[in-house]
Amino acid sequence: MQICYINGSFENKSDALISVEDRGFNFSDGVYEVMSFSEEVLINFKKHLDRLKRSLKELRIRSPFKNFKSLELIIKKLIQLNKVHSGYIYLQITRGTAPRNHLFPRSISPNLVIFTFSIKKDDNLIKKGVGIGLTKDKRWQRCDIKAISLLPNLLEKQNAFENGFYEIWQIRNNHITEGSTSNAFIINSRDEIQTHSKNNLILGGVARDSTLEIAKKKKIKVIEKPFTVSNLENCKEAFLTSTTVGILPVVEVENKKINSGKPGLITKMLIKGYNDYIYSQINE
Amino acid sequence: MQICYINGSFENKSDALISVEDRGFNFSDGVYEVMSFSEEVLINFKKHLDRLKRSLKELRIRSPFKNFKSLELIIKKLIQLNKVHSGYIYLQITRGTAPRNHLFPRSISPNLVIFTFSIKKDDNLIKKGVGIGLTKDKRWQRCDIKAISLLPNLLEKQNAFENGFYEIWQIRNNHITEGSTSNAFIINSRDEIQTHSKNNLILGGVARDSTLEIAKKKKIKVIEKPFTVSNLENCKEAFLTSTTVGILPVVEVENKKINSGKPGLITKMLIKGYNDYIYSQINE
Repeated sequence: MQICYINGSFENKSDALISVEDRGFNFSDGVYEVMSFSEEVLINFKKHLDRLKRSLKELRIRSPFKNFKSLELIIKKLIQLNKVHSGYIYLQITRGTAPRNHLFPRSISPNLVIFTFSIKKDDNLIKKGVGIGLTKDKRWQRCDIKAISLLPNLLEKQNAFENGFYEIWQIRNNHITEGSTSNAFIINSRDEIQTHSKNNLILGGVARDSTLEIAKKKKIKVIEKPFTVSNLENCKEAFLTSTTVGILPVVEVENKKINSGKPGLITKMLIKGYNDYIYSQINE
Repeated sequence: MQICYINGSFENKSDALISVEDRGFNFSDGVYEVMSFSEEVLINFKKHLDRLKRSLKELRIRSPFKNFKSLELIIKKLIQLNKVHSGYIYLQITRGTAPRNHLFPRSISPNLVIFTFSIKKDDNLIKKGVGIGLTKDKRWQRCDIKAISLLPNLLEKQNAFENGFYEIWQIRNNHITEGSTSNAFIINSRDEIQTHSKNNLILGGVARDSTLEIAKKKKIKVIEKPFTVSNLENCKEAFLTSTTVGILPVVEVENKKINSGKPGLITKMLIKGYNDYIYSQINE
């Protein structure tokens, strides 16, 4: 039996229900975060919190918390109730419940849902790397908001899966923006880590930001500038990042090999650095 | 007390609840329709049904009905239970409930919700016309699917409202695509009704299609081709259409007057034709 937090109470997940007039349900008028925890420690909690606050502010959704310290307590209680030591947190906040109307209702209370989930980790993905596909980026132009309007991402992820790819990278104006559920990186010809700059066309991932911090500490040069399809085809290494998978080597793009189809040295160095970075938070 | 139909049963709306793992709630993975009814007759039912089937097909969401005749019966029963003779139907179908994962679950049953609602009609809008604003079209590139991923539309509608506009028309590559909740039309210098062609950049509205049919019957020339901002500024008349408002004259664009700020003759002719068209369905 799984316990879920919903609007102030802990419920069995099957009893955690929302109104058919929730604006998240009718309009995708809401935001979310996915966080990982290990040995009951929330990883990168402050980064997730900062992004959550930004998402709420951009959409002018009222915060369900007077202060965010209470959120941390709620999540820790939820982890204890579910008797899990490591896993993931899904948190969703919608503008609230109101008769369906596009305009923001004047007085409305946000709906908050939090649950835990787990993912079977496949170590082979890290060891052997993954293959990705390419597609046109058809999403809206506010990808920087971590909103629940994820239908475009679903369609691309499903498309990737059916074509045998682990992930799909999206192209806007001949430049790679990001994957459907992850950020995209190459090691370019100058041995720099190159990834799309943080603007309205990508979601600034927490794992992305952490990876760049780690790289800088390791004195690897980082350039935040979109790379082209041709840059990708001629890159030395490639990888992707997300909170759920960490860093994964990308060894094939549309079935063409990158770095002879093997995870690259810099990528491996970053994976080690990322693991150390996570462990340091657990043992803090 | 309002009655709502949810997955096979009629419930008080306050008891009509869905799971926090509904994919509409988590991902905006669903479609919807808004239909009007008058004297218990569903207006343009076949057109709405055809579009609904298309939306489901495009997203590969299983239909909750073996045949769509049952949908008509459900809606008519709902209208009777709510004791309303005229008003609107909101219908939403999501892919269903499943543990959160971007990929389409293999076996999943769609969730279906239907409720009725009413709108206070303001006759002054038809008599005097409305003013609209202009904005960049930031939406995704599958606007032809009537999906619940409406966050971009909400933001633009709210923006329009706060700037004193009734609606906002969106511009992509210097051409008007459509409004945030309606289709956009002008009467151009050749006295033709001009509106964006039906492609991936607009939602083919039922009221839009009906208006064009009426125009053709009245021997008014119709051209389905995007018009520019300059075409709009120099047009003879302008109007918008949607199922909820029918046809509304547009008499101001960003506070600049169209047709000296008065509803145009062709627009008025179309409004009369549209009303006759609705009445003919009621009296069929």
